[in-house]
Amino acid sequence: MNLMEHKEECSRCSQDENRVVYAALLGLGTVGTGVYRVLKNQEAEMTQKLGAQVVLKRILVRNLEKAAKKVEDPSVLTNCWEDIRDDEEISIVIEVMGGIEPAMTYIQESLQAGKHVVSANKDLIAVHGKELFETAEAHHTDFLFEAAVAGGIPIIRPLKQCLAGNHMAEVMGIVNGTTNFILTRMTQEGMEFADALKLASELGYAEADPSADIEGLDAGRKVAILASVAFNSRVVLDDVYIEGITKITSSDIRYAREMGCDIKLLGVARNTETGIEAYVSPMLIPSSHPLASVNDSYNAVFVQGDAVESAMFFGRGAGELPTASAVVGDVFDIVRNILANCCGRIGCTCYKQLPVKKMGEVCSRFFLRFQVEDRCGVLARMTSIFAKYDVSVVQIVQKESKKAGQAEVVVITSGVREDDMNRAVAELEKAEAVLAVSGILRVYGE
Amino acid sequence: MNLMEHKEECSRCSQDENRVVYAALLGLGTVGTGVYRVLKNQEAEMTQKLGAQVVLKRILVRNLEKAAKKVEDPSVLTNCWEDIRDDEEISIVIEVMGGIEPAMTYIQESLQAGKHVVSANKDLIAVHGKELFETAEAHHTDFLFEAAVAGGIPIIRPLKQCLAGNHMAEVMGIVNGTTNFILTRMTQEGMEFADALKLASELGYAEADPSADIEGLDAGRKVAILASVAFNSRVVLDDVYIEGITKITSSDIRYAREMGCDIKLLGVARNTETGIEAYVSPMLIPSSHPLASVNDSYNAVFVQGDAVESAMFFGRGAGELPTASAVVGDVFDIVRNILANCCGRIGCTCYKQLPVKKMGEVCSRFFLRFQVEDRCGVLARMTSIFAKYDVSVVQIVQKESKKAGQAEVVVITSGVREDDMNRAVAELEKAEAVLAVSGILRVYGE
Repeated sequence: MNLMEHKEECSRCSQDENRVVYAALLGLGTVGTGVYRVLKNQEAEMTQKLGAQVVLKRILVRNLEKAAKKVEDPSVLTNCWEDIRDDEEISIVIEVMGGIEPAMTYIQESLQAGKHVVSANKDLIAVHGKELFETAEAHHTDFLFEAAVAGGIPIIRPLKQCLAGNHMAEVMGIVNGTTNFILTRMTQEGMEFADALKLASELGYAEADPSADIEGLDAGRKVAILASVAFNSRVVLDDVYIEGITKITSSDIRYAREMGCDIKLLGVARNTETGIEAYVSPMLIPSSHPLASVNDSYNAVFVQGDAVESAMFFGRGAGELPTASAVVGDVFDIVRNILANCCGRIGCTCYKQLPVKKMGEVCSRFFLRFQVEDRCGVLARMTSIFAKYDVSVVQIVQKESKKAGQAEVVVITSGVREDDMNRAVAELEKAEAVLAVSGILRVYGE
Repeated sequence: MNLMEHKEECSRCSQDENRVVYAALLGLGTVGTGVYRVLKNQEAEMTQKLGAQVVLKRILVRNLEKAAKKVEDPSVLTNCWEDIRDDEEISIVIEVMGGIEPAMTYIQESLQAGKHVVSANKDLIAVHGKELFETAEAHHTDFLFEAAVAGGIPIIRPLKQCLAGNHMAEVMGIVNGTTNFILTRMTQEGMEFADALKLASELGYAEADPSADIEGLDAGRKVAILASVAFNSRVVLDDVYIEGITKITSSDIRYAREMGCDIKLLGVARNTETGIEAYVSPMLIPSSHPLASVNDSYNAVFVQGDAVESAMFFGRGAGELPTASAVVGDVFDIVRNILANCCGRIGCTCYKQLPVKKMGEVCSRFFLRFQVEDRCGVLARMTSIFAKYDVSVVQIVQKESKKAGQAEVVVITSGVREDDMNRAVAELEKAEAVLAVSGILRVYGE
């Protein structure tokens, strides 16, 4: 068949060559500006790539005047949501405003109006994902969110499509750039947490209120989303145990390095026979692990499946253009769905209802440091307390302390139920010869 | 809308819940067996995941008797291609037999018969990709090939979809596990090439005839496919300059490490203003680069785009189950296309016709070692030859040699046209005081 004959036969080829798909952008902050720029950069070849031109017909902003400086044609700006909701020509809504409300209402109303939605809003999806997917499914619309986890790094689509032939056993990684920057500075320059946080703020890696990052909340949202997609079972933010990095000291990091490990804030989701484990915690990880060399504000997600074995996805987890890269990838996918008339082709993939464990039921390895009195029988007393709570000690080292009459005991355990460990530590804290528990850290791995 | 109302309205939900999509497998070697196993492993939840059950109705093998031991129901086996081609129930053909013929004929006939094809066949796609995509497009069928590059690592779909909002500047990486295993052993244990190759054969990392791997041909095929997908412009195997690792010595690696570099066999594709550069070559890469710590038989692909900045995809580049993971991901995607009636949704994405440069026109950095006579004026003579051919020397170090009256000169250049470098080296080899050019290696980076 030659090309002429083909063009006559093929419905897609015979479509209007000037076909336009209208989109609206909600928000013109960092990510919104990035989306605007990336769409501009793609203008020249969009029609060849997709079969249609994506045109930003409307941009919803709070301050019209401020926003006018950021766009070529300020007439696309509006501060009125109804201008977008009620415009039937607009078939794609790109939500990059963040936060729960009004984003939730705007997305729901968009989907109900038959518009497809791309969102980078992890806060919302980690809590209200189920409702959003249900609305999308009911209205045969697409709801895509590649940018909600790990910025520009492709991870949602690879999990839903490329790795769909796997039973995923684990998905974990470094999913917060701010804390990874701070830990990298503490590791490489011996800085203390407060100084590294200050530097992160100065360099623009930390927000004015950094608490969602440093307390682990941001990573927790991403763990909820990753676990839901990887294990085909809904995990919400409330299911995720969260511990931040505010208590990590440079001496913790020094101790870790003595043992051939680095300290990273890891988001971990594991699919075990007894339920899903999902948590965020600073952890020791062997320096030889690929994640240990993911430094500065880079993110990386490591997955393990029964077919693919291990795979890692590495890149920029935030930032104007990297995040926009993921958003625009989703927009283009929707355009392809619109042209092929198959919107809603891949919706919610949570078809299982697996239980999520409480943190107390999770099995972890621990690294512990104790200050003890330097006298006979202390180690025996400690090991008997560990044994009482089923804590199996892999390594126990007594070191000299700078203070006379004191010693430091460093303990590494094998996998222990968290509840048991907590009880053991509580009893150790009360034990006569134990002066202080100066460090408790989880260790990644079996 | 409640679920009952929804089910009545939604055409997809009301489809037969026992829907079956029939597939045929061509080849039951390592990858074929893996695909068979992965499909078995997914049996229980396929319908929930996809909306249909994939059933392997036929498996094409050469030796029926040998194959019978590998499958539960030997009645699916056939050694007759027409059994598959003429079976109208079979809508997906999975080609994992490898080689050019008869794979090419089988795929073409499948596509012409309206069957969708998944192929892991890099040999074929790197040479005949254009014809195959044209046939697929003419018949509105899917032709997917995620497994053809870097085994289980998702890279084709991320490039075509997740990163579609980028102009990709570069895609490069370690795309051959055999040579990476060999170089890792040479680096970590100081082995020579021949010994490391022997070990790779013993451990099953090298084939009986390892030449396609160690000469760089296998990597070259992957570079052709990666470049085509990343730059939206067809690059074929013949366009790729290929150099293997057979001449690398442990002393090359020692020298590299002295300079803070590792030696990796890199496949590099770059989209420059003057054309596409595509080559495979052992190269020095800074030990701090994420690719430098990709060891043993692992693969990794590093991409750079104008929006995403850098991203890396790491994992198992070969092996029964990892490769099958990618194949089955493609099969599942086709099933979703069949159910949503949108097959051919993403076909060939080579809509540009960019020129591909000859290697002589490519600009590279070089690391060179010379054995020279230890006397006055040698360095001056050498640098004047470099200058004559526009070779800019970044670093030049003269070292003592073990042999009396001789010295070793180590040179690092900035980016140099390969043709110019070849002419400079040819003249240097003839220069009176130069006894031997004992090493020439490309250096990755600007």
